[in-house]
Amino acid sequence: MAKKKIVIIGGGFAGVFAAKELRRKMGKDADIELINKDNYFVFQPLLPEVAGGGINSSDAITSLRLLLKNIQVRLAEVIDVNFDEKVITVLQGTKRMPVEVSYDQLVLAMGQTADLSRFPGMTEHALTMKYMGDAFTLRNHVIRCLEHADVAQVPEIKKRLLTFLVVGAGFSGVETVGEVKHLIDKSLKFFPNISPDEINVKLIEFADRILLELPASLGEYAQKQLEKHNIEVLTGVGVNSATGTSAELSTGEIIQTKTVVATIGTGPNPLVEKLGLEMQWGKIKVDRCMRVPGKEDVWALGDAALIPLSDTPTERHDFAPPTAQFAVREGKQLGLNIRRVLNGWELKEFAYVSQGSMASLGASKAVAEVNGIKLKGFMAWVLWRSFYLSFLPGFVTKMRVFLNWTLHSFVPRNISLIEPPTKAATKYVHFRKGDVVFDRGMIADGFYTVIEGGFELDFKDAETGKHIHREYGPGQHFGERIILGRDKRTGKVKATEDSVCLWVARDDFKRFAKGFPMLDEYFKGYIAEKFGEEAARPKKD
Amino acid sequence: MAKKKIVIIGGGFAGVFAAKELRRKMGKDADIELINKDNYFVFQPLLPEVAGGGINSSDAITSLRLLLKNIQVRLAEVIDVNFDEKVITVLQGTKRMPVEVSYDQLVLAMGQTADLSRFPGMTEHALTMKYMGDAFTLRNHVIRCLEHADVAQVPEIKKRLLTFLVVGAGFSGVETVGEVKHLIDKSLKFFPNISPDEINVKLIEFADRILLELPASLGEYAQKQLEKHNIEVLTGVGVNSATGTSAELSTGEIIQTKTVVATIGTGPNPLVEKLGLEMQWGKIKVDRCMRVPGKEDVWALGDAALIPLSDTPTERHDFAPPTAQFAVREGKQLGLNIRRVLNGWELKEFAYVSQGSMASLGASKAVAEVNGIKLKGFMAWVLWRSFYLSFLPGFVTKMRVFLNWTLHSFVPRNISLIEPPTKAATKYVHFRKGDVVFDRGMIADGFYTVIEGGFELDFKDAETGKHIHREYGPGQHFGERIILGRDKRTGKVKATEDSVCLWVARDDFKRFAKGFPMLDEYFKGYIAEKFGEEAARPKKD
Repeated sequence: MAKKKIVIIGGGFAGVFAAKELRRKMGKDADIELINKDNYFVFQPLLPEVAGGGINSSDAITSLRLLLKNIQVRLAEVIDVNFDEKVITVLQGTKRMPVEVSYDQLVLAMGQTADLSRFPGMTEHALTMKYMGDAFTLRNHVIRCLEHADVAQVPEIKKRLLTFLVVGAGFSGVETVGEVKHLIDKSLKFFPNISPDEINVKLIEFADRILLELPASLGEYAQKQLEKHNIEVLTGVGVNSATGTSAELSTGEIIQTKTVVATIGTGPNPLVEKLGLEMQWGKIKVDRCMRVPGKEDVWALGDAALIPLSDTPTERHDFAPPTAQFAVREGKQLGLNIRRVLNGWELKEFAYVSQGSMASLGASKAVAEVNGIKLKGFMAWVLWRSFYLSFLPGFVTKMRVFLNWTLHSFVPRNISLIEPPTKAATKYVHFRKGDVVFDRGMIADGFYTVIEGGFELDFKDAETGKHIHREYGPGQHFGERIILGRDKRTGKVKATEDSVCLWVARDDFKRFAKGFPMLDEYFKGYIAEKFGEEAARPKKD
Repeated sequence: MAKKKIVIIGGGFAGVFAAKELRRKMGKDADIELINKDNYFVFQPLLPEVAGGGINSSDAITSLRLLLKNIQVRLAEVIDVNFDEKVITVLQGTKRMPVEVSYDQLVLAMGQTADLSRFPGMTEHALTMKYMGDAFTLRNHVIRCLEHADVAQVPEIKKRLLTFLVVGAGFSGVETVGEVKHLIDKSLKFFPNISPDEINVKLIEFADRILLELPASLGEYAQKQLEKHNIEVLTGVGVNSATGTSAELSTGEIIQTKTVVATIGTGPNPLVEKLGLEMQWGKIKVDRCMRVPGKEDVWALGDAALIPLSDTPTERHDFAPPTAQFAVREGKQLGLNIRRVLNGWELKEFAYVSQGSMASLGASKAVAEVNGIKLKGFMAWVLWRSFYLSFLPGFVTKMRVFLNWTLHSFVPRNISLIEPPTKAATKYVHFRKGDVVFDRGMIADGFYTVIEGGFELDFKDAETGKHIHREYGPGQHFGERIILGRDKRTGKVKATEDSVCLWVARDDFKRFAKGFPMLDEYFKGYIAEKFGEEAARPKKD
């Protein structure tokens, strides 16, 4: 048999286990390459604990190069696949010059992405829990809220900072809300100006109970545990929309909060959409052997694929569920099937029955159902952790993680904000009718262009003392006087209806306007016309 | 005595030790507040080891709230001080509305910042080693270079990726170069396509030997250790300038590299410059008791201050050096002096003689001179680590860090790239004459406006086959066709002289041009005029 090149796109459970099985079974008969956008594997079920600061990020990830010995790992972004030529186009390094990688057999295992587009403002303002960066961001965000609340002077701002909303009560949502609450509880002693009864943590779920994946009795136990820790659980309630300072529930209630974590809504990976393969429910259709119909040499598995578990599948439960447990089994069997096809043997259909499920609840508690046996509390939590350790490569790494976990339970939570706040230079910002965009005396932090909706400006001319009122609609803009070095806002801008703006950060906007003469002239003319010649004169910055 | 409010700006060695001493000595007689831009204290001498992945970032920082019990910690940026009103203005939380904090006694301990402005392109393209974020960035940058080199196809690009230049051979430079080399050496086994002899690590120092702070014999030993690990040490050599792909040395030699780490060049904190205090050598002038002349209630210490060690200071060595050791002593004595002034007692002048110095060389080796005794090798390294442990608060934290260090030496280096590449939306980019800005077929990653210098564009019109040549000078721009959804560059742009551009990232530029009608129209007209109507027709993105 000639040496074959097998390329796997995606380094999650499915891709990693397929690669390992192929390496084990194919020996030197194949070159195996795994392409992933990160150079590490994330043990995704541990993300909520990273977000809660219960473990270090380095104890929830493993380097792909360490995990996949004798497999070429390529840190790159796949931008296209040519199925006829059997060539993948990737961007690597500085991501400027496209590079081509050819294959004999291709495995698509790139998973799904978060998709919140059904809920206005959620894409822009909600936090998600899908990647390591999300867990990092959430942890830092919660700590930043506590830091700010500790020195906040306005009661409404303090309340908003101390209200945390988690949307969706599946495994991810339940674990996230538990860990976030635990982080806050363990950290409050360091924030002398925040009292425990000012903390408001809510979990909302559209279904009529939490943890639908588990038996009702375990769901009830989990809900009681969360409530015991003062987490408010609302079932039969969804979210309608979000802004930077609030969320609207399906009941019409508006909750003032800086923190909305969405664990709902997934959609296909943008690359998958581009490939032109047959899709259903946002996933790639495959046969029972995980082969893409009509393509001899292309396979799909994991969350990216819809794998039938029977010959006449119709309902959701006739297909493999998107869990780590199934992804591991799929990966192993896919590896065997590729060996079978290369050897001319008959393929085997994927068949697997779940061994059970587990969810961590924070504070060293969990619920589990394993082979029909229900477990809850500390023992379930120990089982949950052991499962992860068994997965780690090498005894020393297992020991390191185990010791770190143990040490972590003795020391205070690390509340160091080790990441700078995200500094997006341009972003879309949603406002509700009546929301104040900025007020007199505020630092001029950016420039706004109206995309949708409307705003009104009120200010008093410093020279004449005259009150000025202006309105802005789509395509119009405000806040441009910062390019002249005005440090503080001189007027107040309010949304007159639900609206969306494009915001450009102060420094980026100034740099752009200064470097680009045509823009500089436009704004000088605009300001002189609207605010008078005096306003257009530059102020020392 | 009425209760006094003492405010300390800066949470480095000087500020933290002043705060602790004040708390200890003033008891409940004072309200103490420390304002810092991060909520943690960095043990700065360990930054090179974080950069080298030898320890976790969490083992080199300590939460200020944990370190400073019964002291109000404010995570905020100080933007102004009014000495007459005794009021500090800060930005906290979302950093929009300025907040005022009043004081009775004020301590300025904000240190210095990196200042590379004397070397063209260094501010924009060199990495520094001052903050935790710098260490993080350097570690990720080195790993990204290895990842890219492992799959790079062009030999010149691979060579550039595997050449690492550290500028300045003081403590920070020597430790950084040693740790970076150690990280590479321990990680190479994971990168099958990189051979050890392709790695090129250089340390350059303008003086005629390294580690000027230590006796010559220790400097020589250190240099030999570095050379034994294949680090090239060049003395009597400085750096002239840098771009994104090269550095020019004072010898005129141009080194092709993606990595220039600058451990030279410091300047005053921007806030210090704004305060209007008397300065010398970029530092605040103070008397021998660390009081700012003419101000009864303002003090300065640490790197931000110039503290005389004699009554008639003239040379640099007549002032306290900018080391952690001195900052700690200054902090303690300043605390006592503030108590003295509040009690009406006589102040004491600062006097201290260095107990010695230490430098880590990577690979568990160090050099030290303590009370005149010279130490080198492993024992010096153990001393170095013990010094840090003695500083940590609480036995459990000490144990956690100690165990982590120990475990780290048994497991492979963690080569996970846990931070996304920096995504600046606008930045200034330097080019040397002849540098290619982009070439045909490259992904269109951004828009360029010329700030200084000149460029030429060459492309072949896709329709007519005609070759087109254009030149661009300051204020002109290129790369704008990305707003129409052109994915790839159709021409080649080269710098015709040493030049600087303002670069705006693709997505930010598109969002801005789309959201801002006036800009959209301008570019549509511009493209139609310069490239023809066909080119201006939008392409599906």
